Amino acid sequence: MTEPLLVDRTDAVVTLTLNRPTALNALDVALKEALREALTELEQDRTCRAVVLAGAGTAFSAGQDLREHVDALAGPDPLATVLAHYNPIAARLAHLPKPVVAAVRGMAAGAGASLALLADFRIGGPKTRFLMAFAGVGLAADTGASWTLPRLVGHAKAVELLMLAEPVPAAEASRLGLLTRLVEDDEQVLPTAQELAARLAAGPTVAYGAIKRQLSIADAGTLTDALAAEAQAQAICGATADHHAATHAFVEKRKPVFEGR
Amino acid sequence: MTEPLLVDRTDAVVTLTLNRPTALNALDVALKEALREALTELEQDRTCRAVVLAGAGTAFSAGQDLREHVDALAGPDPLATVLAHYNPIAARLAHLPKPVVAAVRGMAAGAGASLALLADFRIGGPKTRFLMAFAGVGLAADTGASWTLPRLVGHAKAVELLMLAEPVPAAEASRLGLLTRLVEDDEQVLPTAQELAARLAAGPTVAYGAIKRQLSIADAGTLTDALAAEAQAQAICGATADHHAATHAFVEKRKPVFEGR
Amino acid sequence: MTEPLLVDRTDAVVTLTLNRPTALNALDVALKEALREALTELEQDRTCRAVVLAGAGTAFSAGQDLREHVDALAGPDPLATVLAHYNPIAARLAHLPKPVVAAVRGMAAGAGASLALLADFRIGGPKTRFLMAFAGVGLAADTGASWTLPRLVGHAKAVELLMLAEPVPAAEASRLGLLTRLVEDDEQVLPTAQELAARLAAGPTVAYGAIKRQLSIADAGTLTDALAAEAQAQAICGATADHHAATHAFVEKRKPVFEGR
Repeated sequence: MTEPLLVDRTDAVVTLTLNRPTALNALDVALKEALREALTELEQDRTCRAVVLAGAGTAFSAGQDLREHVDALAGPDPLATVLAHYNPIAARLAHLPKPVVAAVRGMAAGAGASLALLADFRIGGPKTRFLMAFAGVGLAADTGASWTLPRLVGHAKAVELLMLAEPVPAAEASRLGLLTRLVEDDEQVLPTAQELAARLAAGPTVAYGAIKRQLSIADAGTLTDALAAEAQAQAICGATADHHAATHAFVEKRKPVFEGR
Repeated sequence: MTEPLLVDRTDAVVTLTLNRPTALNALDVALKEALREALTELEQDRTCRAVVLAGAGTAFSAGQDLREHVDALAGPDPLATVLAHYNPIAARLAHLPKPVVAAVRGMAAGAGASLALLADFRIGGPKTRFLMAFAGVGLAADTGASWTLPRLVGHAKAVELLMLAEPVPAAEASRLGLLTRLVEDDEQVLPTAQELAARLAAGPTVAYGAIKRQLSIADAGTLTDALAAEAQAQAICGATADHHAATHAFVEKRKPVFEGR
Repeated sequence: MTEPLLVDRTDAVVTLTLNRPTALNALDVALKEALREALTELEQDRTCRAVVLAGAGTAFSAGQDLREHVDALAGPDPLATVLAHYNPIAARLAHLPKPVVAAVRGMAAGAGASLALLADFRIGGPKTRFLMAFAGVGLAADTGASWTLPRLVGHAKAVELLMLAEPVPAAEASRLGLLTRLVEDDEQVLPTAQELAARLAAGPTVAYGAIKRQLSIADAGTLTDALAAEAQAQAICGATADHHAATHAFVEKRKPVFEGR
């Protein structure tokens, strides 16, 4: 039996691979549960200092498995998967206290696109396409896209992408800021994402977690809220061995070495 | 006697036309009251599935009628029109649970620009110009522009446009994201807006309303707030005939037909 | 003894110059305290109608003085300067009820970059570089950058700049919207900033203060919050002599003269 989610480790980088390539990594219950549980484990796992999220084969993810969803439509609460799966996955992915790099090779549609938008960095290639497909089947956005999308591309473009539900090709995605980096060869998407993750895994992990937390507070509050969160973040980071070592390294004109603590 | 606001229907599209062309559709009390009431009616009107907002003649709207405003300056509360007219108009336009397309032909200044910024889509032509004119007469932004503008163009550009109060020509408006689409001929602005509205009126109306609502929550809250709103939105959309029919159509590789319910 | 902060007045424009040029205007306690106190005084000073923030010599500011910080690392609360200095400076700079123009000549790094991002306008030249240097020494953002940065460049670019901590050269800073204006000669950065400040100092000062306040509310709240703040702003601005005079001037096709009251 094939695992719906592959979990690979290389040093401090964990790569999570959505692994239903013949279904374009469409999200069925087994895959969603595996992803939700893997993210829960990674949150506590201090040996993991950066995460890559990728898809097996030629697509990142086609989003919700609509063949499976047809069965849910016959039941009393067809969209129960939002509370059971998509919301916990989105919250855990966004709040993971370490950098997440999405390797967005090929299509990222619906909740598949939403997963990519929750990452801190998105690497794409020529065949990358984002499709906010929800309205195409009469739905609103989910898996956090109502929150991430306007923060990535602005309100007007978010409305347009969600209502018109037209695919965004790689070059436009790059121009809009949906992609952090667009590489020239689709075969280079995953290696580039893993290289970036390896670089981040050798960085100040506590500071990266604090940056994510402070941005999520600042994104939704006043400057006063943000300043309070910044003071808290710097108190935590200021107590790390990494901050002490790096400050001394800077003053002594040495290159800093971060241990993630 | 000429009506200050024209209300035309073509199938499920309602076009509201600011109709004081000789005054560049400046907003006087009669026009503001007519617009406020028309929006209240459209909110409940389920036969209307998309709205076009346009101006008669060569301008979209020059904003507050300053000749009328001179009289208000002699009274005890010169800016009473903000609470009486502009705020209700802005709230109703933003919260209308169906797509709004602004046909921004020519000048959109002051509160006239604010009206356009509250739409979901803005179509412009070569002569389109936005002018955040408020500071030019010693005022701050109103009619929602303090909220819409930074979400459309970012904080720095919003400060610049509001403080310097210089006109933004069509090409720059398009580049900044103030225009969804810039057409080549001013005569094509209204037809293009109506064509887009007709397309949206044939779409999943309940989902479009839910997308607007979830974005307005996400724009002002945390990811946690947004995820709760998304679950609610999908529960509502998941119960529509449109979602059921479109999901079956997708799986059976048919083109979906949406009835707006 | 050299003053760490120079305070110069030309008509209604006050220029604050960070004055530790041999240390690239790195922020030590003396400079931070001088800046905090100067901003407190300017808030009440009605003769000052616009502020320029500049650096002496070839840099804007290298950020926290790390040589001084090495000593703090030996103490019980190494980042106490955030609550004591950076947060009050950030709050006062952001809430100053008059326009602030940063003359960003050369490097703006760490808290030095944060200061520039809190200004309403940023003028740069060919040698301008922004460096969100915090993670380079194992820290998160401070001095408001977790709040200003995503509002200036969007969430994804903010994450990237804070985590990767790579310098942003002038042309990219301009493209991203970190610079309001990029002039061709570094020698022109300060004169251009002062010219813009002089223009703003001849404008409707009460309205500019109201625009800053309403944007800071709108940036963190709902449209409903923003509409309430707009009504309050217009009530205040509507009572000014500037609004009355400028409205009459407009209707009579004269150029308005603003007195800042």
